[in-house]
Amino acid sequence: MDFAYDQTTEDHLERLAEFMESHIYPAEPHFTEEVAWERPPIMAELRAEARSRGLWNLFLPKDHGGTLTTLQYAPLAEMSGRSPLIAPESMNCAAPDTGNMELLTLAATPAQREQWLEPLLDARIRSAFSMTEPEVASSDASNIATRAVRKGGEYVIDGRKWWTSGAMSSDCKIFIVMAVTDPGAPPRGRYSMLLVPRGTPGMHIKRGMRVFGYTDGTHGGHAEIVFDGVRVPAANLLGEEGQGGALAQARLGPGRVHHCMRLVGMAERAFELMCKRAAGRTTFGRPLAEHGAVEGWIADARVRIDQLRLLVLHAAWMIDKHGAKAARREISAIKIAAPETAGWVVDKAIQVHGAGGVSQDYPLAMLWAGARGLRFADGPDEVHKMVLARREIARVAGRS
Amino acid sequence: MDFAYDQTTEDHLERLAEFMESHIYPAEPHFTEEVAWERPPIMAELRAEARSRGLWNLFLPKDHGGTLTTLQYAPLAEMSGRSPLIAPESMNCAAPDTGNMELLTLAATPAQREQWLEPLLDARIRSAFSMTEPEVASSDASNIATRAVRKGGEYVIDGRKWWTSGAMSSDCKIFIVMAVTDPGAPPRGRYSMLLVPRGTPGMHIKRGMRVFGYTDGTHGGHAEIVFDGVRVPAANLLGEEGQGGALAQARLGPGRVHHCMRLVGMAERAFELMCKRAAGRTTFGRPLAEHGAVEGWIADARVRIDQLRLLVLHAAWMIDKHGAKAARREISAIKIAAPETAGWVVDKAIQVHGAGGVSQDYPLAMLWAGARGLRFADGPDEVHKMVLARREIARVAGRS
Amino acid sequence: MDFAYDQTTEDHLERLAEFMESHIYPAEPHFTEEVAWERPPIMAELRAEARSRGLWNLFLPKDHGGTLTTLQYAPLAEMSGRSPLIAPESMNCAAPDTGNMELLTLAATPAQREQWLEPLLDARIRSAFSMTEPEVASSDASNIATRAVRKGGEYVIDGRKWWTSGAMSSDCKIFIVMAVTDPGAPPRGRYSMLLVPRGTPGMHIKRGMRVFGYTDGTHGGHAEIVFDGVRVPAANLLGEEGQGGALAQARLGPGRVHHCMRLVGMAERAFELMCKRAAGRTTFGRPLAEHGAVEGWIADARVRIDQLRLLVLHAAWMIDKHGAKAARREISAIKIAAPETAGWVVDKAIQVHGAGGVSQDYPLAMLWAGARGLRFADGPDEVHKMVLARREIARVAGRS
Amino acid sequence: MDFAYDQTTEDHLERLAEFMESHIYPAEPHFTEEVAWERPPIMAELRAEARSRGLWNLFLPKDHGGTLTTLQYAPLAEMSGRSPLIAPESMNCAAPDTGNMELLTLAATPAQREQWLEPLLDARIRSAFSMTEPEVASSDASNIATRAVRKGGEYVIDGRKWWTSGAMSSDCKIFIVMAVTDPGAPPRGRYSMLLVPRGTPGMHIKRGMRVFGYTDGTHGGHAEIVFDGVRVPAANLLGEEGQGGALAQARLGPGRVHHCMRLVGMAERAFELMCKRAAGRTTFGRPLAEHGAVEGWIADARVRIDQLRLLVLHAAWMIDKHGAKAARREISAIKIAAPETAGWVVDKAIQVHGAGGVSQDYPLAMLWAGARGLRFADGPDEVHKMVLARREIARVAGRS
Repeated sequence: MDFAYDQTTEDHLERLAEFMESHIYPAEPHFTEEVAWERPPIMAELRAEARSRGLWNLFLPKDHGGTLTTLQYAPLAEMSGRSPLIAPESMNCAAPDTGNMELLTLAATPAQREQWLEPLLDARIRSAFSMTEPEVASSDASNIATRAVRKGGEYVIDGRKWWTSGAMSSDCKIFIVMAVTDPGAPPRGRYSMLLVPRGTPGMHIKRGMRVFGYTDGTHGGHAEIVFDGVRVPAANLLGEEGQGGALAQARLGPGRVHHCMRLVGMAERAFELMCKRAAGRTTFGRPLAEHGAVEGWIADARVRIDQLRLLVLHAAWMIDKHGAKAARREISAIKIAAPETAGWVVDKAIQVHGAGGVSQDYPLAMLWAGARGLRFADGPDEVHKMVLARREIARVAGRS
Repeated sequence: MDFAYDQTTEDHLERLAEFMESHIYPAEPHFTEEVAWERPPIMAELRAEARSRGLWNLFLPKDHGGTLTTLQYAPLAEMSGRSPLIAPESMNCAAPDTGNMELLTLAATPAQREQWLEPLLDARIRSAFSMTEPEVASSDASNIATRAVRKGGEYVIDGRKWWTSGAMSSDCKIFIVMAVTDPGAPPRGRYSMLLVPRGTPGMHIKRGMRVFGYTDGTHGGHAEIVFDGVRVPAANLLGEEGQGGALAQARLGPGRVHHCMRLVGMAERAFELMCKRAAGRTTFGRPLAEHGAVEGWIADARVRIDQLRLLVLHAAWMIDKHGAKAARREISAIKIAAPETAGWVVDKAIQVHGAGGVSQDYPLAMLWAGARGLRFADGPDEVHKMVLARREIARVAGRS
Repeated sequence: MDFAYDQTTEDHLERLAEFMESHIYPAEPHFTEEVAWERPPIMAELRAEARSRGLWNLFLPKDHGGTLTTLQYAPLAEMSGRSPLIAPESMNCAAPDTGNMELLTLAATPAQREQWLEPLLDARIRSAFSMTEPEVASSDASNIATRAVRKGGEYVIDGRKWWTSGAMSSDCKIFIVMAVTDPGAPPRGRYSMLLVPRGTPGMHIKRGMRVFGYTDGTHGGHAEIVFDGVRVPAANLLGEEGQGGALAQARLGPGRVHHCMRLVGMAERAFELMCKRAAGRTTFGRPLAEHGAVEGWIADARVRIDQLRLLVLHAAWMIDKHGAKAARREISAIKIAAPETAGWVVDKAIQVHGAGGVSQDYPLAMLWAGARGLRFADGPDEVHKMVLARREIARVAGRS
Repeated sequence: MDFAYDQTTEDHLERLAEFMESHIYPAEPHFTEEVAWERPPIMAELRAEARSRGLWNLFLPKDHGGTLTTLQYAPLAEMSGRSPLIAPESMNCAAPDTGNMELLTLAATPAQREQWLEPLLDARIRSAFSMTEPEVASSDASNIATRAVRKGGEYVIDGRKWWTSGAMSSDCKIFIVMAVTDPGAPPRGRYSMLLVPRGTPGMHIKRGMRVFGYTDGTHGGHAEIVFDGVRVPAANLLGEEGQGGALAQARLGPGRVHHCMRLVGMAERAFELMCKRAAGRTTFGRPLAEHGAVEGWIADARVRIDQLRLLVLHAAWMIDKHGAKAARREISAIKIAAPETAGWVVDKAIQVHGAGGVSQDYPLAMLWAGARGLRFADGPDEVHKMVLARREIARVAGRS
């Protein structure tokens, strides 16, 4: 048992820490105005810089051609999470592109790879993943209603999606769309994934969803999209027909772990802001730092963040060592723990900042909204708890 | 001891309930877009309607020329809180105008009353209250730094304020500004309030503050304002020089109680949405209503809201019977309980709604942000707790 | 709406407060040693004193021949809850005798009343109620397994009960035993109640159950009892055959409300001890009262207790005004709120007292164990929540 | 970074797991009756068995002559914590003897070692540590009032101690007593430790303190002791005069870590009982395991225990690698987290067990009382939080 990071990790961490200080934090003010559903121009510069520093596509697992293990990537994802709207994207490590690149690596034909994967790896284009539907509980994927009907050499897609992240931006050139291809099949063979290029006739991007008051416009927002008789060639099928469910499963694994890693960094950023504010602000004749309630929050936050980090690192280690499937219990656990912990820490940091804490003058309110949203982003907490509990009861009590 | 509302209250409640159904809820979609810092045109119609129904200026206490006691007003304020961006304003019962009207009733000269109070009571203009400053902990008012120096027949005001609600809107014609007039005096004689008309030279309205991404633009937002050598005639002094602290104290009493009443309604609205969603949405083969976690939230929410309502009504009864000063313990208690309870209930309602719950498609996210903001709006929770605890320890243990 | 107690209540409260100070609190040390399953001799003196002061059998509702309404009794029960092992019993207002007396008032034949009710009202004997069984979830009464078979002029009882409170004491002369008389009937007609005198052959009192180490010996403990071919005359049937479920329902209503009232007093007692300790103990150069964590607990405790008291009083008012059946929502609410709130307050008071707080030197640990136990005593919290939630969902969403 | 236990740990774990199953769990019924302040005879057999299996004195750190590192010992201490009244003692790894043996290893003269350390290592005698006093906040050691005055070749001790664990048992032959030897000195030189043999004239063991209703009699309880002119030879000084504070510091370090390790095991034991009960008990037509509230508790408990274990292991690793002083932050963190987490898990397990859960029929209520007590045992939570918060603020904000 050894809790020290290895040298590769330490080297990357040092490089990333430098980059955060010199480029990312100073760029944050460019991202607070929410306009035009487009990335601010500085993003291109940040990407060039990150790439030149060897901080590019690090999310790709070692066994998929990447350079780092999951465990090595975890502390880097944590650090990038300290500025979650900018750092991951500048390193080409942001959702939903990461998940989409993994999908394409896994299942794309050579032609599909050339057309979409290569430009994504180069960040020349962005992509979207279109699965969630307004009429369906996102926690129970078996209800997807969007249909894709094979007609001759084409699929014709009809349905309504929402929360398609990034889709409002014109950078987003390709949509991976989950649709029912065989309604009579059992769930595992019912769905397929189709590649739909931006601008395909019949695809109507209706509006951007807000998260609390945020549009996330600088990232392309979260679109509601109507597919009204959208036709794509059969060659745009990703993998095989009926493989949609299995691919979604594969796609969501690592991405969710990445979210958890970044949530540790979000919490740590809020923690530092809280400590600094507590040290620097005086009320009722005493620094905030000496008010017992504030001390209690800081101590609890320290304990909770440290616990969360260890849990996330342990899950990463399990994935590397035994595979994602064997690590399901550990993955469920961090999905439960990470958004809740980060949300709690950020909320306390907000309280220490007073009214400024809920405003645009600190990253805290935005971090909070992000953490809150992640309690749904891949199924609500309660579903992860149900899954984990049933697994544990079966293990302990021999009951399934 | 009798827990039944009296007939006057029941009559008003019935009338208000009708108005909410017929006019307020249908108007809500007009208020979701946040643009231009101005009220949507429909607000004028709603006001005319409310006035014609006898639902106008009900906030004014009976002993200040109003028609209702605090206890009678409480259930009405609760009901208006179910649509907090629209209903209170449509009845001319919204902050900060209510507090400002009370201030003017209390301390204005006949000329000031004619110029500002009358149009406010008629809702021909709106007003702002400018006290909080960026560099000062709002929990400890003794630090206000904005200066007003008497020079001949004028006061010259210099300083920086923020969170001046409503100020971004051109409807807002008059600003009540808290400033230091005698820096050498003890806190209770140090401050004065001055009436500053919109457009007075040197007053620069810099920007609107956001609350979790929301601008509250349809209400005139929350402005940061620089006062740079702003000159007003000495006749614009409200009350007497040095009376600012006492007036602020008087002003904030009822307004804070109104917030608490409305928070009960915010929680009740969220509760109803949660119950309906729980009944109507099915996941994993069972209605959400039968999932144990959801049942637990609904039961806890019912208990918490009922307790909160009783606490608020009891405080209102204490104010009517013994005066606001004697009811300080009760007022502190509801300031602690109301935002926390409402925030908790709304958060659970959000969770039951899934991703839709954080979006603009339900009022929940906006209600949550409102409740969260009220944990600072007149001093953070922790200050109210300190005050209440010290009072109780003194009472129980004879220690002050 | 009026939150003031009426004169009758105030008069009784004053008399009870005097009695608590002069007799009850000073008697507490007699009850800390847990020996011999018997009441300390001082209990007889306390009873005589309470009776002479007109503080006797106040629990009996006005419409059952008592002197007070439920609402009038509530503040008195609260005050007696401040010393829950002594005060209620000294006033002949302690469970399980109160519930048993109500049962006998409701359903006993004249002969049964003379033999058992009269001596109970005089406190010449004590009684037990034997329903819960070790093998059955107490939350789901439909599983009771103890059988009573009619044979000639007798019932023959076989089964195992536990948590039969008071039964270890020789004062306890009569047992009301719930048993299945018609196993084939639907739940509402399946059970009957039988009167079993102490010492009936075949009744084996096996052992006293402990609650966090406490035996509650001075009250007769909580027995596990085996009924092995116990025979009682058919005249010992209480009410009619098959009426057991309905009687249990009737019995448990008020008793549970009494528990809730007393829990308010338990919390208030702990609150006062906490305030006094906070004022009197200094650590790290400051009185505990000025440590922020302690201030926060005291403020939160004040708010929670006040809310709980109002909720309990409101439920009592509903019972008086509309009957216990119409007040089911309110009764569920206080059953959820009261033990949880009291437990929380007592736990914080313990923390303020340090290690002494968990010891026999303060009543706190015992109060805590009592409050914790009441989270099962008439079904676990979760069942009350399920019931309340389903009722609310049906009400709000028209779904049952 | 590597999360796997090493082979030495795995080997010991396997051996200990076997011993728990074959000897410890079956012996638990012998320890539920609380009588006579003495160990049940079976303890001697268990000790012999543990010793023969190489499970003896494992607590001794490798660098003090022991066989295991702190990190290797941690999982073993966890497992022994599953039966905390029996397993640690049977392995000669129970407090307060472990801390006392460490003290003697550190500071005893050869004569003292021979007289007291050797028999303790052999478990021929037991020992006590007498520091806490009734009149002093145990969180602030600087207030100790017991005096030891040098008179000729003796020290004369006067004072009152309580919570001296183990002292009620006649097995306990030696008391290490903390007393003021130089009242005028600064705190770090004010205290000394003295060895006081059982039966020294003037030492009056007054009574056993209870923890909730438990006496912990089978372990010798927790005594209140009066020292009334107790005389011991100067040779009974442990270490040097004035060294008492430093020794107490040294003593408490590892012992507190051991408590935390065992608390993980206590939580895990409760978790298993909860899972089994949830699987085996049916209410309202469904196994408890399928009730959402229970699922939520089980999932949360899994997450919390896993986080706690990792935090404890990480602290152990820090101690081994950098020393206890450098690991102070990590040690504070586990002292905060461990009792709270274990208490939470046990409380939920109790709730799943219904009334049986608070009784003597399951180890849960006893585990809960133990965990609750450990929130004071070496200073209350709030002190650890203050210490940790101040350290973090200094680190992050450069403020001390």
